[in-house]
Amino acid sequence: MSEATPAVSEQQRQVEEELIRTVLASFADTPDQRLKQLMQSLVRHLHGFIRDVRLTEDEWQRAVDFLTAAGHITDDRRQEFVLLSDVLGASMQTINVNHEAEGDATEATVVGPFFVDGAPEIAIGGDMVGGAPGEPCWVEGAVTDTDGNPVAGARLDVWEADEDGFYDVQYGPDRTAGRGHLFTDDAGHYAFWGLTPTPYPIPHDGPVGALLEKTGRSPLRASHLHFMATAPGLRTVITHIFVDGDQLLTQDAVFGVKDSLVKKFDRQEPGTPTPDGRPLTDMSWTRVRFDIVLRRT
Amino acid sequence: MSEATPAVSEQQRQVEEELIRTVLASFADTPDQRLKQLMQSLVRHLHGFIRDVRLTEDEWQRAVDFLTAAGHITDDRRQEFVLLSDVLGASMQTINVNHEAEGDATEATVVGPFFVDGAPEIAIGGDMVGGAPGEPCWVEGAVTDTDGNPVAGARLDVWEADEDGFYDVQYGPDRTAGRGHLFTDDAGHYAFWGLTPTPYPIPHDGPVGALLEKTGRSPLRASHLHFMATAPGLRTVITHIFVDGDQLLTQDAVFGVKDSLVKKFDRQEPGTPTPDGRPLTDMSWTRVRFDIVLRRT
Repeated sequence: MSEATPAVSEQQRQVEEELIRTVLASFADTPDQRLKQLMQSLVRHLHGFIRDVRLTEDEWQRAVDFLTAAGHITDDRRQEFVLLSDVLGASMQTINVNHEAEGDATEATVVGPFFVDGAPEIAIGGDMVGGAPGEPCWVEGAVTDTDGNPVAGARLDVWEADEDGFYDVQYGPDRTAGRGHLFTDDAGHYAFWGLTPTPYPIPHDGPVGALLEKTGRSPLRASHLHFMATAPGLRTVITHIFVDGDQLLTQDAVFGVKDSLVKKFDRQEPGTPTPDGRPLTDMSWTRVRFDIVLRRT
Repeated sequence: MSEATPAVSEQQRQVEEELIRTVLASFADTPDQRLKQLMQSLVRHLHGFIRDVRLTEDEWQRAVDFLTAAGHITDDRRQEFVLLSDVLGASMQTINVNHEAEGDATEATVVGPFFVDGAPEIAIGGDMVGGAPGEPCWVEGAVTDTDGNPVAGARLDVWEADEDGFYDVQYGPDRTAGRGHLFTDDAGHYAFWGLTPTPYPIPHDGPVGALLEKTGRSPLRASHLHFMATAPGLRTVITHIFVDGDQLLTQDAVFGVKDSLVKKFDRQEPGTPTPDGRPLTDMSWTRVRFDIVLRRT
């Protein structure tokens, strides 16, 4: 994991380390001890990076330009800094650090930039698709705590891209489709109609996309459906389910895949009776089960 | 300089290190080997930071919000990412790495966010103040190479804040004052009228200012006058001169001070004859000498 700082003269080494000491000392009077720890660690790692790679001034300028471009493309509906964090694995590492494995509790993964507060409520068995194009998918499961007790009234926020690879917000501010929220019944069960997830690129018309291009990486995400599950007294989990057999599972652009989140989506021939009697005689559909286990707070 | 990563379970450690390996591997096919090195080192240090501090999701969100706010306040005349780099010492460390000490060559320091291309040309002995308020200062010196040869026709860009602590661009896009460029004469000499530098805060009405506030740091910069010296076949140096005796020399907000750049500004009583006969009978003025030594490229 380590890398050696390139050899420099003793005089030069002292100049560089003296600067680090001075910068660390400038944060010594931070009243909030946690903020002090964060800033001093950030300074150590940031200076470590600059020294390890012997960052050129041109590269420094490019970094400033990159961040500036990321800031300017970011608005209420596009978050380039989250994308940047995602493609560097920083989002997933933060998730790892905050959601250490515990028993069979549902594992978390990245939030992604497309969660929107206030998505419409749907009934159990309802439709969160809202007209978005794609193959229907019946999603069902139960929410329990880590002792196996059903969790009634748990809130599930669900959101996903359509088969063209776009979330509603990518079409413009007035569209709501492929997202909603619902509550588990008294037995902790839930079900809804969504879309069979399909692969799509993360937004790659901005600086993060240019970075992926220059580094030979694909912007594609493994197919997935987002969940956020919240219930009183239990720890909120934000996660996805992935599609068993998807070729992209091993090269997800944001490193979000975990084995426990890969689920079998069973494809049903056109005409197969649907769980709720919905007529789908002229098209295939899929069904998947995702049971969610929440830890106590 | 080092800090220990907090103890986590062996299982957890493996999860975190496996993610780092996966992210590093994603950059393995980067065609540009330097870019590959930069990205892989950045990943190591970024993940090292997240793991060392056990970054919370709330802190991650605050970081995203901070970068977003920095991006949104940044425009053609305000560069919050440069300010951020400056107050973390990253700008100065980059300067250090790229300008290792060599003989008596003039040392470099931070560029700062207020350089503007295309400042007006002034004659030797001319006035770069352009009506900005402050005490007049006669600045003179010579440009030589490291062998002591005078450099004729070297271009000097100079810029500074007024006595109210503002650069021209901070007043709006249409003002040009306190900046200009001139060329050395055949003997390598230059001279111009500027202003005696005064301390001023870096722009602190944005996210970087809030950071300084929360960490108990002052936004003040030690008094200084900016120089950029360029000449064919010689290495461009971007630097400041600082004012001997300034109380802020040891707590400069951007860590830009170097001993070799601290100069004596001699204050002259009102009525003291000026070098070029300019009448300054009713006010004090200062004079300073700054000889610039450029390295070969």
